[in-house]
Amino acid sequence: MNFKEVSENLSLAGYEFYRRGWVMGTSGNFSAKISDRPLRLCITASGNDKGALDETHFLEIDDNSEVLQGFGRPSAETLLHLTIYRLRKKAGSILHTHSVWGTILSDVFYEEGAIEIEGFEMLKGLAGVRTHEHREFVPIIENSQDYIALSHVIDNVLREKPNCHGIFLRRHGLYTWGEDVTEARRHVEIFEFLFEVLGRCLR
Amino acid sequence: MNFKEVSENLSLAGYEFYRRGWVMGTSGNFSAKISDRPLRLCITASGNDKGALDETHFLEIDDNSEVLQGFGRPSAETLLHLTIYRLRKKAGSILHTHSVWGTILSDVFYEEGAIEIEGFEMLKGLAGVRTHEHREFVPIIENSQDYIALSHVIDNVLREKPNCHGIFLRRHGLYTWGEDVTEARRHVEIFEFLFEVLGRCLR
Amino acid sequence: MNFKEVSENLSLAGYEFYRRGWVMGTSGNFSAKISDRPLRLCITASGNDKGALDETHFLEIDDNSEVLQGFGRPSAETLLHLTIYRLRKKAGSILHTHSVWGTILSDVFYEEGAIEIEGFEMLKGLAGVRTHEHREFVPIIENSQDYIALSHVIDNVLREKPNCHGIFLRRHGLYTWGEDVTEARRHVEIFEFLFEVLGRCLR
Amino acid sequence: MNFKEVSENLSLAGYEFYRRGWVMGTSGNFSAKISDRPLRLCITASGNDKGALDETHFLEIDDNSEVLQGFGRPSAETLLHLTIYRLRKKAGSILHTHSVWGTILSDVFYEEGAIEIEGFEMLKGLAGVRTHEHREFVPIIENSQDYIALSHVIDNVLREKPNCHGIFLRRHGLYTWGEDVTEARRHVEIFEFLFEVLGRCLR
Repeated sequence: MNFKEVSENLSLAGYEFYRRGWVMGTSGNFSAKISDRPLRLCITASGNDKGALDETHFLEIDDNSEVLQGFGRPSAETLLHLTIYRLRKKAGSILHTHSVWGTILSDVFYEEGAIEIEGFEMLKGLAGVRTHEHREFVPIIENSQDYIALSHVIDNVLREKPNCHGIFLRRHGLYTWGEDVTEARRHVEIFEFLFEVLGRCLR
Repeated sequence: MNFKEVSENLSLAGYEFYRRGWVMGTSGNFSAKISDRPLRLCITASGNDKGALDETHFLEIDDNSEVLQGFGRPSAETLLHLTIYRLRKKAGSILHTHSVWGTILSDVFYEEGAIEIEGFEMLKGLAGVRTHEHREFVPIIENSQDYIALSHVIDNVLREKPNCHGIFLRRHGLYTWGEDVTEARRHVEIFEFLFEVLGRCLR
Repeated sequence: MNFKEVSENLSLAGYEFYRRGWVMGTSGNFSAKISDRPLRLCITASGNDKGALDETHFLEIDDNSEVLQGFGRPSAETLLHLTIYRLRKKAGSILHTHSVWGTILSDVFYEEGAIEIEGFEMLKGLAGVRTHEHREFVPIIENSQDYIALSHVIDNVLREKPNCHGIFLRRHGLYTWGEDVTEARRHVEIFEFLFEVLGRCLR
Repeated sequence: MNFKEVSENLSLAGYEFYRRGWVMGTSGNFSAKISDRPLRLCITASGNDKGALDETHFLEIDDNSEVLQGFGRPSAETLLHLTIYRLRKKAGSILHTHSVWGTILSDVFYEEGAIEIEGFEMLKGLAGVRTHEHREFVPIIENSQDYIALSHVIDNVLREKPNCHGIFLRRHGLYTWGEDVTEARRHVEIFEFLFEVLGRCLR
């Protein structure tokens, strides 16, 4: 897909996520690959309302975060996107969202190191999962403003957990990915549904 | 109704259910009868976003799950639709949804074997119910990926509970039906409203 | 206002209430006065989706529930509307809604006889209320399918509580009113907001 | 920006806030500066549905609350807007909203004197905040119908807490501000997200 098509798909995801309260206050960032070699990403510029995105709110960048097209600067979290693309070769899109239930769970289960989800039919919405008996671990990583350090931690976690479909920055938000925007968006919806189920069952 | 009209009504139901979070992540499936003898169903193809359906996302199938019209493959759960149509002769439409509150209740009340609902005016939205004093049982069936086995269990449950308006697959979702799409959709809304009331009163 | 204008205002209220889950599954009914002497009401016909109303879903009736215009039959609850208009001379519109939080509160506070609300700024949205220190009582009446008996109970309650802005049928729903559709709709929103606040503070 | 542009931005904020239930029942009021010297504000006229605003629902006023343009009267809370603009020189817009979670928190934390929020990434959505380790205090002020007295209290609180981004009137609502409508709206979204997180963690 070209820049324009990818930005439209990401804008639509933003519209839906905003309606559900997962990208409030300009939070969140979205990206998708335009080409693999050389790596070219379409990624949200920093600071815009994610519920009202259009093509002008996206940048084309390379694997060094250099802006090749578009206006504005990449989010400080671009480095985390690049790290995930490096470790998850099949990922074609990465979506980062901030939800109330995810924020709560990431704090409650921080000591356990992961949000553990097992036994729900909705797990089958995650790529490659064939049964509700699947056990999914969403690793929880301590939040930080040092994105270089954070990218090293994420690099380690993704190597240690080759099967995970997402990671959570504590009291911050979810990173999930998919082979394309459609699959990544499905993963967000699956995780958020399950976070709400777990969250409402706390206590 | 013909295929086109039925698919439009089911698409609209999908749009509304998606807004409410009952078919997240491409979950859920919907069907309606186009003809009775021979049986012809309009049913959602597997894997599409249920919030943005149009005619091209539906299949026409016969009572053997053979695709007579449309692109894509029927959901693995098509067998469950066919079982319900066989046992509930008056059903003209079946809607399968996945909600947070339903998921929670199906786990909490699994040992009791059913979600029991009594004493609410909203029960009168279920076909044939004339008073809030009605007691509705929504049987809870253990979830499984063996759809043939599951269809036998559903067959038994529907014979044993001739008056139930829906069944729940544990930690999975609701199946409900009605004489047409309008009635089936009303049943989903009634059940989901009551599930939320019961869910918020837990503990 | 004429029938057409009134039906448009009530349809818009229905659209908004449906979005918020207050008239699920065709529940609820709405009316407004077209003329006072003789009494002529515009009222929802029974059984339609309240989120997608248009002029054709309304009836014109007189004070005997006789249909003077429109197709379909009046709701069984029309008698309750007529009772309220008789006791609240200034009411120009009555809205009946079914919400999750209201349903829960009407059960929790049934023994006290009323939902008592005091100390919230939002109370000033009720007609004539000038301070958040106002104490509002929403009488709770046991639900019944005998609408004649119910209308007598409502008649008594409205005489005994001349200042109340709404009444609640237990595990059923709210009746509120206002000088016109705009005010009645504002009252629904105020009550529902406050019901949610009280409901979330239970336990 | 001129009156028309500002009223359009404020109307859009109202539309979104209404969808989320933060300005129910015509509650809330919004303003933005049109000029600084002399002070000219565009502010919502009293009593309109904040979910369906257009240019005709706004007034232009001066620093004495005199209406220079538009129909209707300014809200009684206009005095509070003027007080905030006097104490927060950089503020270009003030938004006042009423939410369920904020109402609850303002009561629960009233004795502590403030809603204290610390350790969430979303705090970085508040102007000037650079890290999730930031601790934000939202002062809680007892509600009153004496707006002159209230404006004096607010004056004091804003002098004592020069870094706060918002204040809360107990069981009433939030006042927040920003250099323009965009920033003020972002602050509302950030605060409401965090209020919901804190509210759901109570007990």
